[in-house]
Amino acid sequence: MTETPAATDRRARPSGRDAKRAARAARAGASIPYITRALPCYEVLNADGLALIERNADIILAEVGIEFRGDPEALDLWHKAGAQVQGELVRFPPGMCRALVQKTAPREFTQHARNPARNVRIGGLNTVFAPAYGSPFIYNLDEGRRYARIEDFRNFVKLAYMAHSLHHSGGTICEPVDLPVNKRHLDMVYSHLKYSDKALMGSVTAPERALDSVAMARLAFGSELQDPETGRPKTLLTSLINVNSPMTYDETMLGALKVYARANQAVIVTPFILAGAMSPVTVAGTAAQTLAESLAGMAFTQLLNPGTPVVFGSFASSISMQSGAPTFGTPEPALVLYIMAALARRLGVPFRSGGSLCAAKTPDAQAAFESAQTLLPTCLAGVNFVLHTAGWLEGGLAMGYEKFVMDADQAGMMHTLLAGVDLSENGQAMDAIREVGPGKHFLGCSHTQANFENAFYRSPLADNNSYEQWLAEGSQDMAQRANAYWKKQLAEYEAPPLDVAIDEALLEYMERRKAAAPDSMV
Amino acid sequence: MTETPAATDRRARPSGRDAKRAARAARAGASIPYITRALPCYEVLNADGLALIERNADIILAEVGIEFRGDPEALDLWHKAGAQVQGELVRFPPGMCRALVQKTAPREFTQHARNPARNVRIGGLNTVFAPAYGSPFIYNLDEGRRYARIEDFRNFVKLAYMAHSLHHSGGTICEPVDLPVNKRHLDMVYSHLKYSDKALMGSVTAPERALDSVAMARLAFGSELQDPETGRPKTLLTSLINVNSPMTYDETMLGALKVYARANQAVIVTPFILAGAMSPVTVAGTAAQTLAESLAGMAFTQLLNPGTPVVFGSFASSISMQSGAPTFGTPEPALVLYIMAALARRLGVPFRSGGSLCAAKTPDAQAAFESAQTLLPTCLAGVNFVLHTAGWLEGGLAMGYEKFVMDADQAGMMHTLLAGVDLSENGQAMDAIREVGPGKHFLGCSHTQANFENAFYRSPLADNNSYEQWLAEGSQDMAQRANAYWKKQLAEYEAPPLDVAIDEALLEYMERRKAAAPDSMV
Repeated sequence: MTETPAATDRRARPSGRDAKRAARAARAGASIPYITRALPCYEVLNADGLALIERNADIILAEVGIEFRGDPEALDLWHKAGAQVQGELVRFPPGMCRALVQKTAPREFTQHARNPARNVRIGGLNTVFAPAYGSPFIYNLDEGRRYARIEDFRNFVKLAYMAHSLHHSGGTICEPVDLPVNKRHLDMVYSHLKYSDKALMGSVTAPERALDSVAMARLAFGSELQDPETGRPKTLLTSLINVNSPMTYDETMLGALKVYARANQAVIVTPFILAGAMSPVTVAGTAAQTLAESLAGMAFTQLLNPGTPVVFGSFASSISMQSGAPTFGTPEPALVLYIMAALARRLGVPFRSGGSLCAAKTPDAQAAFESAQTLLPTCLAGVNFVLHTAGWLEGGLAMGYEKFVMDADQAGMMHTLLAGVDLSENGQAMDAIREVGPGKHFLGCSHTQANFENAFYRSPLADNNSYEQWLAEGSQDMAQRANAYWKKQLAEYEAPPLDVAIDEALLEYMERRKAAAPDSMV
Repeated sequence: MTETPAATDRRARPSGRDAKRAARAARAGASIPYITRALPCYEVLNADGLALIERNADIILAEVGIEFRGDPEALDLWHKAGAQVQGELVRFPPGMCRALVQKTAPREFTQHARNPARNVRIGGLNTVFAPAYGSPFIYNLDEGRRYARIEDFRNFVKLAYMAHSLHHSGGTICEPVDLPVNKRHLDMVYSHLKYSDKALMGSVTAPERALDSVAMARLAFGSELQDPETGRPKTLLTSLINVNSPMTYDETMLGALKVYARANQAVIVTPFILAGAMSPVTVAGTAAQTLAESLAGMAFTQLLNPGTPVVFGSFASSISMQSGAPTFGTPEPALVLYIMAALARRLGVPFRSGGSLCAAKTPDAQAAFESAQTLLPTCLAGVNFVLHTAGWLEGGLAMGYEKFVMDADQAGMMHTLLAGVDLSENGQAMDAIREVGPGKHFLGCSHTQANFENAFYRSPLADNNSYEQWLAEGSQDMAQRANAYWKKQLAEYEAPPLDVAIDEALLEYMERRKAAAPDSMV
């Protein structure tokens, strides 16, 4: 086990100067393409504890093994690489997966956005916030819960585009259930490219849909598809490859993974774990299993295409031992999250986890408690790519309109938090204390006047007024204020410019692909 | 500046073994008298950053000074101790206050409860949760917001007594506005002693009320008033002494402080700061001022009675720069909190801060977001005494019944969090992973069965059921479920035993004191 970065294509951390500049921008409330943290990461285990988890992951990989189902090519690649293949079960000599990852996987990488000013840097000290992903339902105060439609999908792309605190347009923000299953990915990718200029995610539900995603992204990005900094194809997409925990990769996910990895598009390898069902009921057991599963998938991407960007993912929550229902915002998943983030740093790859997760059905206090108890650990742990930052309700079954803008507000606070403590002369404010003195107030002093604009995070949704004023304004709770806010946002939305020729090429591609096969709802 | 503990009456940290035992108890969901953390404290500044804040506090103490108003005795004591006294302004040679504190203030101390099994240890690795404090109003879903009455006060004492996650009965949980101002402290102290057996706080609104509090506590605790471990009078009360920031101690607070310090009762010296009004708008400026103010007050307790227990307090939030209204749950106060906790550790005294603070008027999503964004930092920072753990609404103006049980639930989660990661063989769960293997589930495996009872924190208020089941059960939000919960709790309340002679002595004392002066509403 080494903490020294391997040599090939592994970039250094950004300088302290970069971090400070980004921190200043964040403090100033400006729209920044991503966060570069100036706040230390929180660690719950010491080096011995982390080494123990790594040792256990090695044991799992060597003794228990990982199944690669329905993919003879994968088994063949593993066999040639020196793993022990028995049926569909692959066992790995201790350290093999780690060595494969550390030899060639980049420590951080740039995902290009259609608007280069919105390129995101994934890994290192950086944090990128993306919307929630994958809900078949939407929820809002007006309609309650219903199946999602492509119109909802477009609405959330627009809301994510407008949210200063979100850096990424995400992927399957919600499932457009009104469109055929085998074609909806085309409309989703198109909507991201058309209604936003932030970076996006590709489809993973079938290899040909992954190929469509790559093709459409390339159309949208035009002719310069080579990254001058790396000499490799530009990374235009990230993709979410979930492991079928415990210890199983299925044919669908392997198919999409192979498409993206070979195209130098980023793959987020994520064991999806509800502890107690898909992993042991303990934090340390869940952490070791997550590491083992993710290591195997990450190593596989490097077998396919050495140097292709890969992200260490962890989605770990737990279940109610009474009902078996998934629970969120509880302490155990937070502990797993802190550990996995530290393990990713030791491994030297970008890390994805967390978000604003909750089991709540509506944007009530439960939703907020659970989301805050996930998002704050996410940020303190040092997660690099935060899927599910905004909108998540009901264990991911519903995408909430009100929840979306509430979460985006919280994500805005995280910008200020991660900017850390300003210890400059101005930050120390000794002149202000000298000027004001005992028993006076600071409201009018020169330092307060000079820092008025950037002092304190301002929430557009929190009500800090007096009870009397709040009553006079209709006694609205936060969800009601959020309802008015997202409607106002959508009413004010203006699309980013998109070259007409590119738009036509995208539409033409979609039309051709839709005509190539009959609609299917499976 | 030294990080070495001074010699006199300064106890060592509990051993790792103590922490592990407490952690096991917390994991087992048992009622424990207080938390002994097994989780590292989160630090946002390195040693250089903390030393800078300390240097600035020394400059404030030496150059700007602190006013001690309306208390010639205090000025005289400071003069004799070597401070520079000019009118009511006291300036302190650099390091003087720190040296006074470090020489004699205990690193941690025991506050005795009427039931010795509920004694709390304040300081070190320990965390004690106490209810919110000081609201003139109450709020519940049935009545909305109204003035608090003694009946509400008793209800909250009962709810705090029943809450496994609260270790302390608190003080002025709400103001019983239906009782005379000059006598209500008697009913409050009596209610704590009668309806709970957890530790409590004394009145600070006048020196004679502090004396009443001490007298009643002594009656309730009977004859053994000497602490055999320290040879000093047992500490039966904590008291909340707020600084009138910036840099001012007033006559009322000094009067109460002197009573408690001389009686060896614990004093929590807390600069109450809304940054932007009572301190500079910056985190580092607010931290330096808080340290300076608190150091002066803590040092004063040691002048009065060397070795008397004192707690470093910090209440720092910020204001809306638009309306001047206080805001809570924002990132800046969290940063201040992390810094102050680290400074308290360097100083070597117990620390009080945080809680479940919010500006929200109702127990909605705003309340939950803001409270979680305060309570989690409180716990990660390593706060020893957490006032305002449960019930706080509307910037402290209202005590919420639903909010109380919601916050107590969150405090329960913090028990599990602070118990840290179990790295025992059972915690590692390698047997479970070996037993289950790829593609199976863990629900029925032996390890899951063996750990079923203690696996995962269980919230009594979160709804994790399916949407359909939730609909069938009435589509209640968390506040509605909390409403039913506190009513059930109160209906099931049973008073802890209280010796009849003690009860009579307390009632007699109250009667006598009430007869001694006419009622007053000021």
